[in-house]
Amino acid sequence: MTKKKKNRSFLQEKEGINPPETLNKNAAAALRANRKKLPSTEKLIAGILNHDEISLSRAITIIESTAAKHQNQAKQIIESCLPHANKSVRIGITGVPGVGKSTFIESFGKQLISKGKRIAVLAVDPSSSLSKGSILGDKTRMEELVKEKNAFIRPSASGETLGGVARKTRETIILCEAAGFDVIIIETVGVGQSETAVHSMTDFFLLLKLAGAGDELQGIKRGIMEMADTIVINKADGENLKAAKLAKTEFNRALHLYPSKENDWTTKTLLASALKNEGIVEIWDTIANYFELTKKNGFFEKKRKEQDKFWLMQTIEGRLKSDFYSNASVKKEMEIQLKLLHENKTTPFEAAEKLLKLK
Amino acid sequence: MTKKKKNRSFLQEKEGINPPETLNKNAAAALRANRKKLPSTEKLIAGILNHDEISLSRAITIIESTAAKHQNQAKQIIESCLPHANKSVRIGITGVPGVGKSTFIESFGKQLISKGKRIAVLAVDPSSSLSKGSILGDKTRMEELVKEKNAFIRPSASGETLGGVARKTRETIILCEAAGFDVIIIETVGVGQSETAVHSMTDFFLLLKLAGAGDELQGIKRGIMEMADTIVINKADGENLKAAKLAKTEFNRALHLYPSKENDWTTKTLLASALKNEGIVEIWDTIANYFELTKKNGFFEKKRKEQDKFWLMQTIEGRLKSDFYSNASVKKEMEIQLKLLHENKTTPFEAAEKLLKLK
Repeated sequence: MTKKKKNRSFLQEKEGINPPETLNKNAAAALRANRKKLPSTEKLIAGILNHDEISLSRAITIIESTAAKHQNQAKQIIESCLPHANKSVRIGITGVPGVGKSTFIESFGKQLISKGKRIAVLAVDPSSSLSKGSILGDKTRMEELVKEKNAFIRPSASGETLGGVARKTRETIILCEAAGFDVIIIETVGVGQSETAVHSMTDFFLLLKLAGAGDELQGIKRGIMEMADTIVINKADGENLKAAKLAKTEFNRALHLYPSKENDWTTKTLLASALKNEGIVEIWDTIANYFELTKKNGFFEKKRKEQDKFWLMQTIEGRLKSDFYSNASVKKEMEIQLKLLHENKTTPFEAAEKLLKLK
Repeated sequence: MTKKKKNRSFLQEKEGINPPETLNKNAAAALRANRKKLPSTEKLIAGILNHDEISLSRAITIIESTAAKHQNQAKQIIESCLPHANKSVRIGITGVPGVGKSTFIESFGKQLISKGKRIAVLAVDPSSSLSKGSILGDKTRMEELVKEKNAFIRPSASGETLGGVARKTRETIILCEAAGFDVIIIETVGVGQSETAVHSMTDFFLLLKLAGAGDELQGIKRGIMEMADTIVINKADGENLKAAKLAKTEFNRALHLYPSKENDWTTKTLLASALKNEGIVEIWDTIANYFELTKKNGFFEKKRKEQDKFWLMQTIEGRLKSDFYSNASVKKEMEIQLKLLHENKTTPFEAAEKLLKLK
């Protein structure tokens, strides 16, 4: 294994063949070095601001990187992009697997592009680090959208924790906005707590449903229906249409039971067939109405400010906990206290005090 | 205001009247000192273990006290009671105002006493520190139960935070158990997050409902129906009986949609009229069945251990946060960072890092 790795470069000299005059050893070395070098931070930033998708992609990779050497670079890129951010609308889209999210986003995205918008599609999938399923999936699923000049599709950021994934997504939004995208679509897989995370980083939350799927109770229970600004019943075509119309009535009745929202917006239920491109225009009209209303009454701006504070607190509190629990003496004492607790020899409060003294 | 406070003691000497022979200055001083002294910690503990309700009451007052001088005493009392605790069953009872909680607990409590049980009724009401409404309320509402020798009724612990109230209630449970109470009933007002707190400190959770109250959605949304081990539809009498029977069918259908519980218990819906003392026997039979099942399959013990861990973590994390946010330099920097965040000059994550460095 100590054998030197074979040099496969076409810049190498072959025995018996004289190198062309333009190729000398110095030039070859310079070329090689240059190829290995990533563009400088300044070049990446300039590229992003110049709407260059390759620069954007590379910058996102740096942000997603966990390598120490990228931390500072990531910080610089974000700082430079910040003054150019906050100019898009951010739309969250969720729905259980099988509801037709990709087809819907493809149809919806093409509609936006036809209206002259530039759109970026990001995905939040905290499970992808386990399954690795969606890394390629997102791109291949939206076959037509991926070919569009004005669409940028980025597969899920992977990460150990939902908090980590959420942070990367929030920072990616900033970069996409600096790269001039008007509409940022953030898709989530509709399992776990990712909806809450996506709801906390978007301006508008769209819930995709199927007629008669019977998961209404789950949606109510987990607060997802309450988060929705619009419910779209997808696959409302052919034999499904009648059931979809019934479901629309049912959803509207259920929504009626919720108290009215602070933003004066009444959650709408719409029908769509993403496959047949039906109802998509109406959905964008509804969303545009929402933005008109909430930008006028100040809710749009207010919500973004609240989201910023939410993520600030989330980040702080997450770190306070992880720092505490990973502390070596806390770990050791925790074992002792848990044992005492198990044997009813202490109370949770007494044990907590012992542990907190080690901070 | 520098005038010396008038000595009103009958032990004082009056001019012209000779003190009786048994009364000398030393004896008077000793008597005075003794009268001001509360029973010693040892005496209180002995009283509790001897099932003396006055000692129990005084000890709970010490635990509820925020005065520094009581902290150590409280700690000693709890430590001495711990080996005698954990021998009761703890029942949480919740329901919206108007559902008839007091009448139900009175009827239910008397039923338990007739079976030879000694019961303690505690209340968790995080709003009481604001309204002060329930401090006296609990006692006067349960007119008959309060007269029973084997019943101990303690009004809500007040406190600034739900966490604080919950801690005091948990510690009061330990004292009540050491004082030999077999059944601890913990009532909550059915608003806010108090149900979750009570659910996390009881073995069995009973949800009181009215027929046709229309708050089913709220119950599902807030996860209360899911927490319930039994739903009791109260006021199921007279003209209400038919509606109550209908409600029972509806609840059972809704409960059917939930996944089955880890403890092999199926949530029951029962009818009762606390006012007419109807259905109360069946409710206790159901609860007794629950305890038989869960003590046999190990869930009872497992749940208590999990609750201990839950409160340990809750206490730690609550304190980590309050310590951090109340730190003077954090407070100062927080203002700066919030302003930068508001002006889009930083990200929540960057701001969090700046703040965390001050820890």
